[in-house]
Amino acid sequence: MDHTEKMKELVNEVDQAILRYVEHGKHEKLIKAMRHYPEAGGKRMRPVMAILTAEAVGGRGKEALPFGCALEIIHNFTLVHDDVIDQDPVRRGKPAVHIAFDIPTAIIAGDALFARAYEILADIDVDGEAVRRLLRSVSNTVFLVAEGQQMDVDNEERAEVSREEYLDMVEKKTAVLFACAAEGGAIIGRGTEEQISSMKEYARLLGIGFQIWDDVLGIKGDAKKTGKPVGSDIRNGKRTLIVVDALERLEKDPRKNVLTAALGNANASDEAVHAAIQLLEDIGSIEQARQFALDYARRAKELLSCLRDCTEKEMLREMVDYAVGREI
Amino acid sequence: MDHTEKMKELVNEVDQAILRYVEHGKHEKLIKAMRHYPEAGGKRMRPVMAILTAEAVGGRGKEALPFGCALEIIHNFTLVHDDVIDQDPVRRGKPAVHIAFDIPTAIIAGDALFARAYEILADIDVDGEAVRRLLRSVSNTVFLVAEGQQMDVDNEERAEVSREEYLDMVEKKTAVLFACAAEGGAIIGRGTEEQISSMKEYARLLGIGFQIWDDVLGIKGDAKKTGKPVGSDIRNGKRTLIVVDALERLEKDPRKNVLTAALGNANASDEAVHAAIQLLEDIGSIEQARQFALDYARRAKELLSCLRDCTEKEMLREMVDYAVGREI
Repeated sequence: MDHTEKMKELVNEVDQAILRYVEHGKHEKLIKAMRHYPEAGGKRMRPVMAILTAEAVGGRGKEALPFGCALEIIHNFTLVHDDVIDQDPVRRGKPAVHIAFDIPTAIIAGDALFARAYEILADIDVDGEAVRRLLRSVSNTVFLVAEGQQMDVDNEERAEVSREEYLDMVEKKTAVLFACAAEGGAIIGRGTEEQISSMKEYARLLGIGFQIWDDVLGIKGDAKKTGKPVGSDIRNGKRTLIVVDALERLEKDPRKNVLTAALGNANASDEAVHAAIQLLEDIGSIEQARQFALDYARRAKELLSCLRDCTEKEMLREMVDYAVGREI
Repeated sequence: MDHTEKMKELVNEVDQAILRYVEHGKHEKLIKAMRHYPEAGGKRMRPVMAILTAEAVGGRGKEALPFGCALEIIHNFTLVHDDVIDQDPVRRGKPAVHIAFDIPTAIIAGDALFARAYEILADIDVDGEAVRRLLRSVSNTVFLVAEGQQMDVDNEERAEVSREEYLDMVEKKTAVLFACAAEGGAIIGRGTEEQISSMKEYARLLGIGFQIWDDVLGIKGDAKKTGKPVGSDIRNGKRTLIVVDALERLEKDPRKNVLTAALGNANASDEAVHAAIQLLEDIGSIEQARQFALDYARRAKELLSCLRDCTEKEMLREMVDYAVGREI
């Protein structure tokens, strides 16, 4: 079985397990709201990463499935609340939870998903001290995700965001949950302490690269593939690494107006948005972000040397190429 | 030292511990939003109950302090989200979190409090299997609280709510968190399985009585003491046990109009509200709710017989009298 087939099987297994975890409860509407995003699919990168890591350190991948599902459920909980906060009406091509239901239900469904994830943690088949360790890691992680989300909310109101602030925010909003997945997988697979910390760092680097690549796709990607209208990040005024870099480079450049006219301007014409994107290209800000992402990817791969050679190790390498390099 | 003094000391200790648990974090605004309700005080019934229970089953009360604080923080997280959901602008005499800050920050601060509570759980000084048991209990509990909150939201739109539905909702919104406090206290104090389940049931009954009593106070209480304007529950159309009972009794009674004219009518005059309250009194609905609450209190106290005679047992008995019988 080649890797693509194996990956499909894995994702399929994860899909089914997640839906089983969010099917019981006495309140029908609440359960429907909780299932809304998990049912809409997703890449399932976090559970897959946990499973592959557990196997690659010498354990049994299946033992990490519940843990991986708990993290995917936490990921979904943060998406539900993020969409309320950002007033995003659409997610994965479906109405957001607060649109399909209402805002109170979306807030409660997010909380319920969070609680359910911890119910799963409590039942993981590892010894009590390992449960404590996973609990600590997951809870620290969610706290950091909340900080990252708060930074994101605050950054929208700020004209100047530094490169360091952007990377700190991305690390918290995205990378720490990947890191938790790989760390937890290595703990469940009974890896060495060195493997546990290397795998955590591998996933953290992958996560940052993933987000920077996402920003590149948001500006240069094919709208048909990404599902995002071209330039929406520009019109929304998103402070991506590309934009942060460009604003710095253009500080005393008269062309800066071309960018600022479109940035954060919901009514900017397609021409204005394309001109801004062309400018980002011309001054090298897009290419620089690509290089940044590729550098994170390279460093992530290096950390895989702590693993024995096996299919799962190769697949973890391919996950990096997917995270940084994908077209959608 | 008499019980009142001892209780004050306990509450004071809990107050300080809770604030210590919500002081670290890198995002200043987020920490401020997280501290907003914990700083405004509160009765701290849940932590106090956990501590007294741990001691009463023969353990050391102090060992249950972190667990109790985790539950109080969870209680505060649910208040933050509830106030967003109900659009309540005031809590404990201060602007609600979403008013003092904004809605996104309130949603995130609630999530962050939830995560912090679990960080505390992970560090509790009991063996790993006990951590697992506490984790399971807390997570089941929060899931039920979410169901209760969803029922509450849905009930606002429904004309008919049965007594059973009301009690189910109250159990989930209020009683399960008390039950978790006493159960956890008994687990941490290494009580017998019989004590653990009796204390859980004690607190569940106390919690239901507490909420019914709260409804009585909301209608008959002294506004100066309760801090709630008289009749606000009537104007808000809250489906309390009193109202549910009255609507049943008045089904074919022409006086029903006196109630329905004020119920859920934000613009009802003071006279109309007083007439409605007088009607609730006349037909015995208020007295019946009082009796219900007192019955729960009596049953809660009976369960304390599983404990040895000690100061903490007496204080747990007094907590029932406070929960059902207090004036504020």
